Amino acid sequence: MTTTTHPIPTTRNGIDCTRQAQTLEAIAGNHALGDVRFRATNHWRGGTRTGSCIDGYASAGTDMKHQNSFTIDSDLPEGFLGTDRASTPTEQALQALAACMTTTMVYNCAARGIEVRSVEAEVEGNLNASGFLLLDDRVRKGFSQVRLRFTIDADATNDELRHLLQASPMLDVFTHGVPVDFVVAAD
Amino acid sequence: MTTTTHPIPTTRNGIDCTRQAQTLEAIAGNHALGDVRFRATNHWRGGTRTGSCIDGYASAGTDMKHQNSFTIDSDLPEGFLGTDRASTPTEQALQALAACMTTTMVYNCAARGIEVRSVEAEVEGNLNASGFLLLDDRVRKGFSQVRLRFTIDADATNDELRHLLQASPMLDVFTHGVPVDFVVAAD
Repeated sequence: MTTTTHPIPTTRNGIDCTRQAQTLEAIAGNHALGDVRFRATNHWRGGTRTGSCIDGYASAGTDMKHQNSFTIDSDLPEGFLGTDRASTPTEQALQALAACMTTTMVYNCAARGIEVRSVEAEVEGNLNASGFLLLDDRVRKGFSQVRLRFTIDADATNDELRHLLQASPMLDVFTHGVPVDFVVAAD
Repeated sequence: MTTTTHPIPTTRNGIDCTRQAQTLEAIAGNHALGDVRFRATNHWRGGTRTGSCIDGYASAGTDMKHQNSFTIDSDLPEGFLGTDRASTPTEQALQALAACMTTTMVYNCAARGIEVRSVEAEVEGNLNASGFLLLDDRVRKGFSQVRLRFTIDADATNDELRHLLQASPMLDVFTHGVPVDFVVAAD
């Protein structure tokens, strides 16, 4: 009779579970290690166009550089008097919500030994332009409602997956809001 | 004595003000013309990577196509066990907030005869990973605070500019939240 050993996989869902366990243990023992400051710069490019640059962040108080400087342009469709050369900021925020929910769920699945094979998401948000065009102050300026549909192939129940999708930072921001302070300086 | 006529400019801040005035009048007269449904799809690309596609939206109940299909990839930095090949969803949402505030302000300035010459924005958000990693349910999962700094060259006071930046759809969502419904289907 032979004995078959099943080595503990070091990677699950494409994530290094050995390093993940060490990272989670470190943050659980010292919450300050989990502090992150994300940032971006944006500049107006004329008309309805802007361009953003994302190149660094701070992790546990230490400034870090991304491997590359990432750029994201925005525009509005022609029906909104734009030039339709890029997606709109509102579409970008919706896709960020879907991407954040998927990434958070897959990441937390890896930490719990749950294999994920595929995730597809559709996201949609309703708004009415008479709010942000300041035509009617009874109409809210932002989305009145956002809906997502996830199609997931994973070794977990839908309820377990729902619980892990709920851990998403952007879902928290979208559903609960966040204090936003801004200052305006003359150039 | 000669009379100098000053023709009404048809473009202000790069926006066609003649068409803008017609658009605003039409929506003011019939709010349903201002209804928009923005959408995106996202798929998991393994590990910490996702990819989004943005190609259409609905305006006043009519399905519209963007001129191009826009893609946005996301990833996490190596310190978060990612491959750092794209910006994070949280960074993408922050830049979308800044882009939305700038676009909304410039657009509403054009409608009010206010010339804008330049806009730069910096945006930053704090979060602590022990929330979304489900290590401590007393720590919120999303940003605890978001800060922006705008540097604007325009023919308006800072108070007028603040008022028009406040009209941003994404600022409304970030500060007040929005009902988000999601469903999970097994693949």
